[in-house]
Amino acid sequence: MVAPSLDKITSFTPPQRTLMGPGPSNINPRVLSAMSLPVIGHLDPAFAGMMEELKVLLRYGFQTKNPLTYPISGPGSVGMENCFVNMVSPGDKVIVCRNGVFGGRMIENVERSRGIPVIIDDTWGEPVDPNKVEDALKKNPDARIVAFVHAETSTGCESDAKLLAQIAHKHDAMVIVDTVTSLGGCPVLVDEWELDAVYSGTQKCLSCAPGLSPVTFSERAVDYVTKRKDKVQSWFMDLNLILNYWGNTARTYHHTAPVNALYGLHEAMVMVKEEGLENAWARHTLHHQALKAGFDVLGLQFVVKEESRLPQMNLVTIPEGIDEAAVRQELLNEFNLEIGAGLGPLAGKVWRVGLMGYTAQKESVILCLSALGSVLARKGYAVNAGAAEAAALKVYAAQK
Amino acid sequence: MVAPSLDKITSFTPPQRTLMGPGPSNINPRVLSAMSLPVIGHLDPAFAGMMEELKVLLRYGFQTKNPLTYPISGPGSVGMENCFVNMVSPGDKVIVCRNGVFGGRMIENVERSRGIPVIIDDTWGEPVDPNKVEDALKKNPDARIVAFVHAETSTGCESDAKLLAQIAHKHDAMVIVDTVTSLGGCPVLVDEWELDAVYSGTQKCLSCAPGLSPVTFSERAVDYVTKRKDKVQSWFMDLNLILNYWGNTARTYHHTAPVNALYGLHEAMVMVKEEGLENAWARHTLHHQALKAGFDVLGLQFVVKEESRLPQMNLVTIPEGIDEAAVRQELLNEFNLEIGAGLGPLAGKVWRVGLMGYTAQKESVILCLSALGSVLARKGYAVNAGAAEAAALKVYAAQK
Repeated sequence: MVAPSLDKITSFTPPQRTLMGPGPSNINPRVLSAMSLPVIGHLDPAFAGMMEELKVLLRYGFQTKNPLTYPISGPGSVGMENCFVNMVSPGDKVIVCRNGVFGGRMIENVERSRGIPVIIDDTWGEPVDPNKVEDALKKNPDARIVAFVHAETSTGCESDAKLLAQIAHKHDAMVIVDTVTSLGGCPVLVDEWELDAVYSGTQKCLSCAPGLSPVTFSERAVDYVTKRKDKVQSWFMDLNLILNYWGNTARTYHHTAPVNALYGLHEAMVMVKEEGLENAWARHTLHHQALKAGFDVLGLQFVVKEESRLPQMNLVTIPEGIDEAAVRQELLNEFNLEIGAGLGPLAGKVWRVGLMGYTAQKESVILCLSALGSVLARKGYAVNAGAAEAAALKVYAAQK
Repeated sequence: MVAPSLDKITSFTPPQRTLMGPGPSNINPRVLSAMSLPVIGHLDPAFAGMMEELKVLLRYGFQTKNPLTYPISGPGSVGMENCFVNMVSPGDKVIVCRNGVFGGRMIENVERSRGIPVIIDDTWGEPVDPNKVEDALKKNPDARIVAFVHAETSTGCESDAKLLAQIAHKHDAMVIVDTVTSLGGCPVLVDEWELDAVYSGTQKCLSCAPGLSPVTFSERAVDYVTKRKDKVQSWFMDLNLILNYWGNTARTYHHTAPVNALYGLHEAMVMVKEEGLENAWARHTLHHQALKAGFDVLGLQFVVKEESRLPQMNLVTIPEGIDEAAVRQELLNEFNLEIGAGLGPLAGKVWRVGLMGYTAQKESVILCLSALGSVLARKGYAVNAGAAEAAALKVYAAQK
């Protein structure tokens, strides 16, 4: 690509997309408006008050009483790294469950924190096998941590976070849990499940912009970090410094918070509270069911078995003979509709259709079924026009 | 502070402040609007096009041809850490110049990157002494890097970046330079000055929201990082991974970019281009001169000598007997005007009055002089009402 000429660059106007990929999902207009409110200082008492509210709202989102619950000033990847650099000291053994892209990234994080990863592999599209975790803990009684992804964005599969945490704790290990795609879309019960270090993202089921990572740490996790003798290798991510910033009201200057992005997250979490978490989970499930009814008619098969299937991230196999990239391009160019491609071993074999946050609404489902049906038909794939939408509408009608 | 009750939390409406502290400064309304545009996918061709433009705009801002010039998805502190973890390998000797808060933070970054800092101290409020740097390099011929802050936000002092880089290069050392407060407010000539790893922030002289950190790396710096045998300790910050994301057009998935924040930075940089860098620098200087004329009338002394004084960050000593925190509080509560407190050895002794980006305009200067004069007068400090504003207005009149 030739670099654009400076002279010719003007204001950017994005197209209006329906975002049904792996995230970001569409942002609620109330959140967009909040982000454009005038900035205030990050040491302003009004900002401090907003931060206190945001911590309360995030505790609700995570269903936790953990005092150390706050948004990291960086995307989910920083949330992940934040958990690892604080929880893993050099030489620590960490059992990492890999059943998708993000388990793989966890291994990278253990290695770069100079820990020793013990890798448990499961097939992409299947949940983490609790028996393998138990075996690994028996074989590695010195393992300090078990790390896993609750909801794998790359596969649409949910693992049993509660059970995995129970097994880990039985063997005196703490858990690091990725809830980037689950938070707000399906139950994430941090206290009930006794999760220790948990990170998420704002751009999936919270209807918010990408760029922040809500995290929460159990007292046990905080205790470990505050008692570490060595310095956490990252200055920016060191929880001992963060505790003096977000953790108390003295607000020792640490970094300049992304004020406008935080306005957006505050508004998004107010909306989660207004809707109620249970209602938000039910909404994701309802639209998933409608989408599934339509996909059934289109003959698109789900990759993940029903019991582990995430409502907010739908992986379906691509019909034989269909150029999947061409379909995605036509959806984008003709319908302003984004769906996601497969990653890793699933590349070229599946589509990832997200139904997250503000995107999880009837209009998205109907558009997706109609547009996908239309594009597939044009490519010679036999579909009964209108039947997929009708099946989805039937699900909605039954709901009323 | 008692945590707010979840039930009572509603949408947040910030007060409208004039931000004349150390940053964030006020955001241009065009930038606020841009951030509230609908989100698009971070792999969308439209987003890729916007990113390419943004890189061109940032190269203009930094006055560089460096291909690796891009915005980091995190605040300036992440920009700083990004430079250190990539440029400093374990055991590397780094000369760090400390004449304020951010030099101190650089030392932390060297240590956590397992480098060996050689610290050069200069008095807060004075520039880095080039002779000390030269001496340190002579005594430490194995020093690989010299790190310094171009414009110290904590003191309002500018160091001679060009000269310091010349000295470093003469001794075969590369330079890491903090331009958080300088970029857009006074000349930052990356190529002409031959700077190697440079980071900045968006919330100061660029009239943009806090949360992103523009960075640029010379070919020499990139060459060093790509040839490193060991893995950079941070996954998120590893330039070798970033090069596959921002660095080329294949866009290997790395992390979900903060799309809306980047809309804002794109718009802010379009405005920098529209105004022209030289005009932006002149604007900061003009309003500084007007402010200074008023401060002279108020009898407020500048901390930094004229030749090293930053126009965008004005440190003045607090008149004897004045409760400085009370003054700041009254300015905030009664005039919605934020000015900054002193840090470190300057705490309680100075005010930091920022004139950065969108805040660098006549209205801010007049409000500040009027409000500060009024509050000081109420506290028994003899000021000639209206005379400070008159002096400032005279500067503006002379300009026309």
